[in-house]
Amino acid sequence: MSSSFNVNATVRTFGGSLLKLSHESAVLGCKMALNVFLPSSTATKIPVLWHLAGLTCTGDNGAEKGFFNYWAAKHGIAMVYPDTSPRGSNHPGEHDAYDFGSAAGFYIDATAEPWSSNYKMETYVTKELPELLYSAYPVLDSSRVSLTGHSMGGHGALSLYLKHPELYKSTSAFAPIANPSNCPWGEKAFSGYLKTKEEWAKHDSTELLKSYKGPALDIFISYGTADQFLLDGQLLIDNFVAAAKQVGRESEVVVKICEGYDHSYFYVSTFSQEHVEHAAKHLGVL
Amino acid sequence: MSSSFNVNATVRTFGGSLLKLSHESAVLGCKMALNVFLPSSTATKIPVLWHLAGLTCTGDNGAEKGFFNYWAAKHGIAMVYPDTSPRGSNHPGEHDAYDFGSAAGFYIDATAEPWSSNYKMETYVTKELPELLYSAYPVLDSSRVSLTGHSMGGHGALSLYLKHPELYKSTSAFAPIANPSNCPWGEKAFSGYLKTKEEWAKHDSTELLKSYKGPALDIFISYGTADQFLLDGQLLIDNFVAAAKQVGRESEVVVKICEGYDHSYFYVSTFSQEHVEHAAKHLGVL
Repeated sequence: MSSSFNVNATVRTFGGSLLKLSHESAVLGCKMALNVFLPSSTATKIPVLWHLAGLTCTGDNGAEKGFFNYWAAKHGIAMVYPDTSPRGSNHPGEHDAYDFGSAAGFYIDATAEPWSSNYKMETYVTKELPELLYSAYPVLDSSRVSLTGHSMGGHGALSLYLKHPELYKSTSAFAPIANPSNCPWGEKAFSGYLKTKEEWAKHDSTELLKSYKGPALDIFISYGTADQFLLDGQLLIDNFVAAAKQVGRESEVVVKICEGYDHSYFYVSTFSQEHVEHAAKHLGVL
Repeated sequence: MSSSFNVNATVRTFGGSLLKLSHESAVLGCKMALNVFLPSSTATKIPVLWHLAGLTCTGDNGAEKGFFNYWAAKHGIAMVYPDTSPRGSNHPGEHDAYDFGSAAGFYIDATAEPWSSNYKMETYVTKELPELLYSAYPVLDSSRVSLTGHSMGGHGALSLYLKHPELYKSTSAFAPIANPSNCPWGEKAFSGYLKTKEEWAKHDSTELLKSYKGPALDIFISYGTADQFLLDGQLLIDNFVAAAKQVGRESEVVVKICEGYDHSYFYVSTFSQEHVEHAAKHLGVL
């Protein structure tokens, strides 16, 4: 179908096809894998929802455990599940921790050595991969694209949307790391990937929301009250909500509190319906 | 809740709870793990659907990737996901192959040494575990229980139902190993676990169907036409259907052919709705 992707498998699911793809990324300087769900559809152009995964994950977690494909199939939406970091760059310490380096790219472009050489997940997810994908699969409608994501991927979904509102119709987040500058995970990632602390605010959804000047937002966030990472102060969703109030956008951020749910895909799969429907509304298919 | 089970985690999902349990099995002579999904329900007694998993699997695969819990929650059905073999017995060669020994118990009671000492998955799944479970969780209705299963677990769901029709309201199978006596997987398992070839028919669903004398059946089987194990002659579902015809029960076996689907959980999750609804009908909740 395209020279830029190897189609390693085409798996029928929920009436459509899950494509297990791999390709050489020039931006990341390595081979990358991803999953794409193409719904059965008579439309000539299919809207696209990207799911950004969390720490330790690949593009497989959401595709296998998120139940997104079921709802995407219902609404004629394609799903894109990219990986969470470059792979096998073998920078010193790259594989030593679950929350830094491999599978912890944080959807930003690194400026600190050695990461700045190829840890450029923001450019990969917002530019290189979509351009390759939409040209390889012209049925994907590059003018109707939304974001969602979980945990670190929720930070990605919020921050990439607030940085590039022109690229996306909507965003939503499951238990996002909403204020990384002020939580252990974010402090470790930002201090490692970014050269100066001055750069942190440019990648922090809570700070980005305060300075956001784009059109009115309709951000949907959900989280579980039994989420240990919420209780440990890693998510700081209240800070994001407070920032929305501060800039008079409280009505543009809807937060669903899921009583008793944790941080796992048992929580994600339970609420993927609401996140896909939020995107479907903005993608013009609901 | 019960002294016979350790509740290692209680995870909220689809409005109910997934219990991650472990217990000491006297029959298997080892510690066993399982998952139980309890739906949110006002019923004083909740019907139960057991999902038997396939080769290489544990009780986690169906619970995480099958989307049974979503449909079970809709119909107020509890799901039970047992493991697929004893664990850590360390018989010679037990861990050498994916299709024999660990994670390949085939839901039979072994008669050949050394397996006969504790490879007794039939007794575990039909007697020991249900007795422990229904006494630990009295809300589970031991008089309304159905079976389903995938691949080796489909063999389990069909054969255990045909051996013990009094224990179950219904059975269904995803891509079952339907005639193990005549396929490589079954020949390896039966020749390893059973002392004499005369015993094979007692555990082979196709043979059991020929000699079945119980009440009218309503067996639901689905499989995908792109299932490599079907194409490799491991499933032999046609032999089961032929046996049904031979004994005048063709109307009691419904086979759904899923065009283009493979053997994976992408197939299982797509059709779990129909299997859960088949059970729901027989459990009196649909």
